[in-house]
Amino acid sequence: MEVKDNVIGVLGGMGPAAGVDLVSKIIDQTDARSDHEHLPVALLNYPERIIDRSTFLFDQTDLNPAFAMTEILRQLESVGAVVAGIPCNTAHAPAILDVVQDELDRTGHSIRVIHMIEETAAFMKLHMPQVETVGTLSTLAVYDLGLHRKPLEAAGFDVVVPDDDIKEEVVNRTIFDTEFGIKAQTNPVTDKARQNLVIAIDHLVEKGADAVVLGCTELPLAPMVEERSDVLLVDPAEILARVLIRETYPEALKPLAQHYAAHVPS
Amino acid sequence: MEVKDNVIGVLGGMGPAAGVDLVSKIIDQTDARSDHEHLPVALLNYPERIIDRSTFLFDQTDLNPAFAMTEILRQLESVGAVVAGIPCNTAHAPAILDVVQDELDRTGHSIRVIHMIEETAAFMKLHMPQVETVGTLSTLAVYDLGLHRKPLEAAGFDVVVPDDDIKEEVVNRTIFDTEFGIKAQTNPVTDKARQNLVIAIDHLVEKGADAVVLGCTELPLAPMVEERSDVLLVDPAEILARVLIRETYPEALKPLAQHYAAHVPS
Repeated sequence: MEVKDNVIGVLGGMGPAAGVDLVSKIIDQTDARSDHEHLPVALLNYPERIIDRSTFLFDQTDLNPAFAMTEILRQLESVGAVVAGIPCNTAHAPAILDVVQDELDRTGHSIRVIHMIEETAAFMKLHMPQVETVGTLSTLAVYDLGLHRKPLEAAGFDVVVPDDDIKEEVVNRTIFDTEFGIKAQTNPVTDKARQNLVIAIDHLVEKGADAVVLGCTELPLAPMVEERSDVLLVDPAEILARVLIRETYPEALKPLAQHYAAHVPS
Repeated sequence: MEVKDNVIGVLGGMGPAAGVDLVSKIIDQTDARSDHEHLPVALLNYPERIIDRSTFLFDQTDLNPAFAMTEILRQLESVGAVVAGIPCNTAHAPAILDVVQDELDRTGHSIRVIHMIEETAAFMKLHMPQVETVGTLSTLAVYDLGLHRKPLEAAGFDVVVPDDDIKEEVVNRTIFDTEFGIKAQTNPVTDKARQNLVIAIDHLVEKGADAVVLGCTELPLAPMVEERSDVLLVDPAEILARVLIRETYPEALKPLAQHYAAHVPS
């Protein structure tokens, strides 16, 4: 029996439920019929050590979360991880992720971080040729930096974002509000958060989106009340799960779900 | 800010979805409103390294899974874990867990393994005084060893188990069947597995159970189609999640859900 010693690392905690969700998606996307056919995965969910990414990016702190993230990546490597995913879109800001990569290089660590946002744009270019206009939902920091817009435009898509009041009062609060936000209440997600998400998706569809990227790892935690035939919802964490499998055990990757093809507007 | 450096370890992989489920339950049972109020958790899901527990207990292999489990516990300790939970009832067989503890002691490792099954009996004795007769659902190996029966009887409960044909053809296949079993198909769990689970619970209720222990960590992964007022369903993984929090950050433990009180037959 060939031993599976290339561990898939998950740098979690941003938020904790998003870390769990990525591990679940790795399991779901693995073609396995018994425990032993599943892949080795290490999840380190140390939320308190990693300062909020948006807080740092908005200059409300000098402490770059990159240093704590690098330390946890080193720990993942110490338990066997050869690749890692970071289930937090905001953490992919260059001001954070570039520092992580520099620190890993400087200290001689070879664990390979998969870039969730670039992989999402590459996946959509490959698998969703019918899509022309992509809407994005994210934290304010991610909007300000154009983290999704830039790679999606480079991949040939038109990109639309919500109007400012929707960004702030609907999308951002759905993530962060300490009463109804998804970070505060995950299981179950509040009705208010789910309603807000529908409002934001409808708004992007009105602005011409035929696909919407759920570009904050909290957002896919809200179960959609109904399947939508008018727009394709894209989950970067699911794409990240597939890339992590492809880069370690490609033979274990499940075929792509038909729902991507089925949902594309004709 | 007090740093949360006592990591909660989860020795997962038995099966992989049960490992994820325990981490989710730790998050759910934590009283937190933002990422940073959540607790540090490390999950190592290395399913291939740990031989099937039932296979070992039925003498179909000489390789005790205890050794791989101990190695993973040492890795959990190396990333900061001070306590650990093992979300697999069968792995709590003395022929396995006693060897794990001996190996940890012998090699000078102090990570403290919480005993899910003993904690379940203790929890039920404390919080479910109205319950007289407890039914148990588990793998055949766990039935043969009386892993739930003994501590539940010591706690003062009467214990009933399914008839042999139900044990083998309904309960065990719901866990292990490579077509419809929960280990083979977790998301979603098959209709057949859910129907089997209802048949098994009904059978235990007919035999007098006023509570049923879902004593295999795959079983709570099947969503119950309806709330039951005739019987209290007890999930050892949820109890384990609460004990892991209590033993590290007791101030972060959510109050006990009212459903336990509400579901007890009057």
